[in-house]
Amino acid sequence: MATEIERKFLVRHDGWRKQLLSTTHLMQGYLASTPTLTVRVRLEGDQGRLTIKGATQGISRSEYEYPIPPEDAQRMLDELAETAIIDKTRHRVRCCGHVWEVDLFAGDNEGLVLAEVELGAEDEDFERPSWLGDEVSDDPRYYNANLARHPFKDWSGRQA
Amino acid sequence: MATEIERKFLVRHDGWRKQLLSTTHLMQGYLASTPTLTVRVRLEGDQGRLTIKGATQGISRSEYEYPIPPEDAQRMLDELAETAIIDKTRHRVRCCGHVWEVDLFAGDNEGLVLAEVELGAEDEDFERPSWLGDEVSDDPRYYNANLARHPFKDWSGRQA
Repeated sequence: MATEIERKFLVRHDGWRKQLLSTTHLMQGYLASTPTLTVRVRLEGDQGRLTIKGATQGISRSEYEYPIPPEDAQRMLDELAETAIIDKTRHRVRCCGHVWEVDLFAGDNEGLVLAEVELGAEDEDFERPSWLGDEVSDDPRYYNANLARHPFKDWSGRQA
Repeated sequence: MATEIERKFLVRHDGWRKQLLSTTHLMQGYLASTPTLTVRVRLEGDQGRLTIKGATQGISRSEYEYPIPPEDAQRMLDELAETAIIDKTRHRVRCCGHVWEVDLFAGDNEGLVLAEVELGAEDEDFERPSWLGDEVSDDPRYYNANLARHPFKDWSGRQA
């Protein structure tokens, strides 16, 4: 069990491309979402992963993650996902002492770009890269589980 | 991914005790149950296990099962289970060419005894032990997910 502390931001421009470490194609879907937890399956490159997350408390939530065979992940995405599949390319970017994840969404969320950083403590200070936009950590529209249900293409007054 | 073919029966008497192979204490809870799948966590002796089962089709259903650390299993049972915890002692019994599982329930399902056998095909023939009672494979009341929600102590006209 891990406690995940992440902060999520919009992205103002693609200056992050100069600091690129790696790029991975990522598909994920939700098998179940209840008020107290979500069950996510992910295929990241050729690695499958099953993740159970407890309810969010502030910007922390309990998380249990297990590697699974990629063929299991693909089959669950095909047969058991209760939502649309989120399709994005994840760019790992080193900047200002942290590794950021910059996600470019495809499919129904095309046009959306989000940057996330994982922190060691809720109050940890960090330097903001020049390409970073507004923080959206607390905006439920940007939760992946919600992007699967209410994708960016259907938003009125898009911000990203 | 496995397809599980199981048949479930009531138990008429405890003649099975003479054929006992092993006994394990087992606690399980459900993290999520939707019309299309259930997510179950189990602590069996000192082994944790996470199981995702697709919707039942006849007596077959798709099943994905992964070992997890026992401390993760215990914590999920404590913090994330959406139902009561099922507490039972599982007896493995060899009889007539198959290994049967005879489950003695405790807690809110005290008094209930069920026997299960796993088969290789839906139409596989098998010999019925003398202690076997009526088949309940198709009776939803005996599904573990339902026993967690509507335990045996609350049934009217108990059968077991």
